[in-house]
Amino acid sequence: MEHGGDLLTYENQYHGKLIDFSSNINPLGPPTGLEKHIMDRLESLRAYPDIQYRKLKKSISSYLNCNEENILVGSGAVEIIDNFMILAHRVIVCTPSFSEYEQRAKVHGKDVVRVPYKKDFTLDIEALKNTLIDGDLLLLGNPNNPTGLRIKKNVLIDIYKMICKKDGYLLLDEAFYEFCPYDYDSIEIFKKLNYEKVGIIRAATKFFALPGLRLGYGCASKHRAQEIRKISLPWSINSLADAAGQYIFEDKDYIKDSKDYIEKERNYLQDELSKIPGILSKKTDTNFILIELANWNEEYIFNGLLKQGILVRKCNSFIDLPNNYIRVAIKSRNYNEMLIKAFKNITRKEI
Amino acid sequence: MEHGGDLLTYENQYHGKLIDFSSNINPLGPPTGLEKHIMDRLESLRAYPDIQYRKLKKSISSYLNCNEENILVGSGAVEIIDNFMILAHRVIVCTPSFSEYEQRAKVHGKDVVRVPYKKDFTLDIEALKNTLIDGDLLLLGNPNNPTGLRIKKNVLIDIYKMICKKDGYLLLDEAFYEFCPYDYDSIEIFKKLNYEKVGIIRAATKFFALPGLRLGYGCASKHRAQEIRKISLPWSINSLADAAGQYIFEDKDYIKDSKDYIEKERNYLQDELSKIPGILSKKTDTNFILIELANWNEEYIFNGLLKQGILVRKCNSFIDLPNNYIRVAIKSRNYNEMLIKAFKNITRKEI
Repeated sequence: MEHGGDLLTYENQYHGKLIDFSSNINPLGPPTGLEKHIMDRLESLRAYPDIQYRKLKKSISSYLNCNEENILVGSGAVEIIDNFMILAHRVIVCTPSFSEYEQRAKVHGKDVVRVPYKKDFTLDIEALKNTLIDGDLLLLGNPNNPTGLRIKKNVLIDIYKMICKKDGYLLLDEAFYEFCPYDYDSIEIFKKLNYEKVGIIRAATKFFALPGLRLGYGCASKHRAQEIRKISLPWSINSLADAAGQYIFEDKDYIKDSKDYIEKERNYLQDELSKIPGILSKKTDTNFILIELANWNEEYIFNGLLKQGILVRKCNSFIDLPNNYIRVAIKSRNYNEMLIKAFKNITRKEI
Repeated sequence: MEHGGDLLTYENQYHGKLIDFSSNINPLGPPTGLEKHIMDRLESLRAYPDIQYRKLKKSISSYLNCNEENILVGSGAVEIIDNFMILAHRVIVCTPSFSEYEQRAKVHGKDVVRVPYKKDFTLDIEALKNTLIDGDLLLLGNPNNPTGLRIKKNVLIDIYKMICKKDGYLLLDEAFYEFCPYDYDSIEIFKKLNYEKVGIIRAATKFFALPGLRLGYGCASKHRAQEIRKISLPWSINSLADAAGQYIFEDKDYIKDSKDYIEKERNYLQDELSKIPGILSKKTDTNFILIELANWNEEYIFNGLLKQGILVRKCNSFIDLPNNYIRVAIKSRNYNEMLIKAFKNITRKEI
């Protein structure tokens, strides 16, 4: 399974340090003070984490503005997705999307049906309508990875109604939520419906720049949250991840600064990429950009960037994407400039 | 599900700090220098852990003296057990044992058959022979929790032969291995058979006193290890647990000192407990002692100890143990003395 962030493999190939544009992490790094907070809590490794993660859930519920009884926690978003898969009957995924959606469903012996996104990477509502049968779980990235688009609010509500009619379940993977321009908050939207047929998953991984921490969380109905707790692995969140989760959400300045920074760099990178011939960067709502290569295959560009010390994400392992797509993260200005320069170095040769 | 180490619940009841005899952790604490090592690696939280955990596996293979291709890793022993359950057909557990054995099998929809231990808590080989059908997975604690006994070497080999005849699989949970007096090492025994039909699971949790870290590991055949990797959750081990696993196994003095310390305290605590009337402490090979209460039920003793600031493990949630058993960990001498004193305080009142 190809994943972003596999630095070790490619640094062995490159024989040196790479700039990692393959994993989509907040370029500002984790909140200031987190390292100190963790250092002060190293003692916590000597005891089991609270098996109910009560303090952690309290912090998350306050951040998400929903009740503690609705909170789910897991070792990254992927563990929570996995738990939903165990409970699912049949799973619908839209492609291209995060490969683990399908993988986790298959591990648990579930039938998976793929409904491709339309050419512009929006949802194919008609195809979904024709595909859904009673009891299906529909899993959507919102925004979706690697395509980068967020579901429009009215479309989301329509899909939810469609799911309810079929007594199905809508699972939203919102791991990149905070990077999006503010439009709506699905946790707020579905709060008044008590998350009856919807689960919303988020994580510290991307926005809080903590992929090594393994902390995912989310919201579901009280009943569904209880079901998930019953099947979850005990103590799956490490004590230090538990402690970090009681700290990071408090830093409101960091959260605002990160959102502002990403917006600025998104505009910069999209502008600059649009000036490079032969490279079609797609519209994005989040902190990564899918790029269609008009004149080259992905291996050529991937290797051309790797030689310049830059690691990007090849996309041919994503189902329903051809082999002329790569994905880049939005990073800090100086790195983004280096990416643009490296792109120009390769593409200039070719013209 | 009742588990040891649920300090938060009982400290709320007690209104203060408790001495935790309910979780069976090395009383010497983690290896010296580990905290410094982790502090030096806090940066690693900013990147995904190596999805293949290559350096970690190298350290573990050197500690266990087996090949890297045989190594399994997981977020605690319980995640590795869970992965084996996904691959299993029918699961045989011997009772009483760790409740998660049965729980994880049931989460994955597997039939579970219980074969009770004999009255002396040794395996009922005849009953096992009569129960096993082709393809069964037999899961045994070695030593078993809460009973504390290790399978004799010749019995283990007989069981393995029995399993092979049935084309089954033997899964040994050896989370408490290093606490046992040195007799045999199952990883060494089964090495020459390439772990064909056996998986052996260990963990940093108990012996290295790191229950908050969530680091389990084990050995299986190359083929089985590959199968497990295919179904494992990606990045399930946190970066700091990955880093810790590259450190702790090097400390040979700590490992020897811990074994010696436990042996000394095991002898002390067994001697002292044997002098208390109405309390029948069972023989143990490891760092915890199962105690049968001749004259009281477990609630009475549990509460009597709790009032004195001591938390022990009630055992009625273990299947096939009646409600007059408790389990205590072997801790440091001063705590062990306090346990003995607290027991005497309760039992004296009654005579």
